[in-house]
Amino acid sequence: MSNVSTVRKPRASRRNSPRRELIVRRAAELFEEQGVAHTSIEEIAAECGVTRESIYYYFSDKVDILIEIIKPESISLDSGLQRILGLDISVREKLVLAVENHLHRFNPNYTDMVVAVRRMRRAKQDARLVEMLNIWRHYQRNWVSLIQEGQKTGEIPGSFDAKVVAYAILGMCNSPSTWYRPSASLTIGDLSNILVAIATNGIFTEK
Amino acid sequence: MSNVSTVRKPRASRRNSPRRELIVRRAAELFEEQGVAHTSIEEIAAECGVTRESIYYYFSDKVDILIEIIKPESISLDSGLQRILGLDISVREKLVLAVENHLHRFNPNYTDMVVAVRRMRRAKQDARLVEMLNIWRHYQRNWVSLIQEGQKTGEIPGSFDAKVVAYAILGMCNSPSTWYRPSASLTIGDLSNILVAIATNGIFTEK
Repeated sequence: MSNVSTVRKPRASRRNSPRRELIVRRAAELFEEQGVAHTSIEEIAAECGVTRESIYYYFSDKVDILIEIIKPESISLDSGLQRILGLDISVREKLVLAVENHLHRFNPNYTDMVVAVRRMRRAKQDARLVEMLNIWRHYQRNWVSLIQEGQKTGEIPGSFDAKVVAYAILGMCNSPSTWYRPSASLTIGDLSNILVAIATNGIFTEK
Repeated sequence: MSNVSTVRKPRASRRNSPRRELIVRRAAELFEEQGVAHTSIEEIAAECGVTRESIYYYFSDKVDILIEIIKPESISLDSGLQRILGLDISVREKLVLAVENHLHRFNPNYTDMVVAVRRMRRAKQDARLVEMLNIWRHYQRNWVSLIQEGQKTGEIPGSFDAKVVAYAILGMCNSPSTWYRPSASLTIGDLSNILVAIATNGIFTEK
């Protein structure tokens, strides 16, 4: 890297570099393994076999890397649900698709990173963190809309608080983050089937 | 505090001191607010208006304080479920009691502390952390036993993986940690009723 910093491209345009991709991948592994709070730029650099300065060439700080990891997935999660909501099918069918959308698009290892963003946001004002929280809030609101739609059609009892129901189903869909690792004996598809069955009919045979 | 450290009582016998209780309470607040990883002994001391040395008079380190906060609750959570499993009632009735036991005994603010213990355990061997993990494993196994009992009685379909079902219900019961604060309009009892209804019958009116 030459020292002619005045001619360096802005960070945003330093995309599609194999080194940049390596940094994001290794950082994601470290964040998953030891948590965002316990991971420093120095460690990420050491893990990539590059200097601290190389990291700062591509990213302004740890938050930048963190958001690069979770933002694309968060956006696709929410836009997937948005599309499902617009389909001309029953709410029951939408719920099945919504659970599948969540399990297929959400990397369970990212749950801790979501917690980290929430915590950082509480500690400081940062437009990038606020943007992430807004994406997730929009996603949660879409889930609440789905339940409310079912209450309007009469498919879901109106006596339930739509927000509590939506958050309970979402909580169930997020829980595999603490124990699930993809395997042939329990694929994401199998997992999805069980969660959909519980959400739609509960766990008991006789009602 | 005198300097005659040779006559100091061992830490374990320095119980029931108002200062000790203050330290635990303030530490719990800091852990909840900013996370275990971001909280230092120095901050806990400052928050209590005592010296760092005062903290070390009662606790050998941060892990000691953390475990003092979450261990009694974890034990009562598991022994509560153990008692429910031994009752002479249907599995459906046991499930209702098990969800209520979880929601009434588990402080939702402690979820992050549970994650912190898991992460610390991965980073280092420590008998106190291993003991905590064993309590939680025992609790999870008790949940799996409950589902398996239902499969034996035919109340729960045998085609479901008992572990996945147990963890899904537990995940749903843990999820209020990210959003629920007790209020008159949604008590722990209300919340419990909705989660029990979902777990037993699913969210739809028609099956």
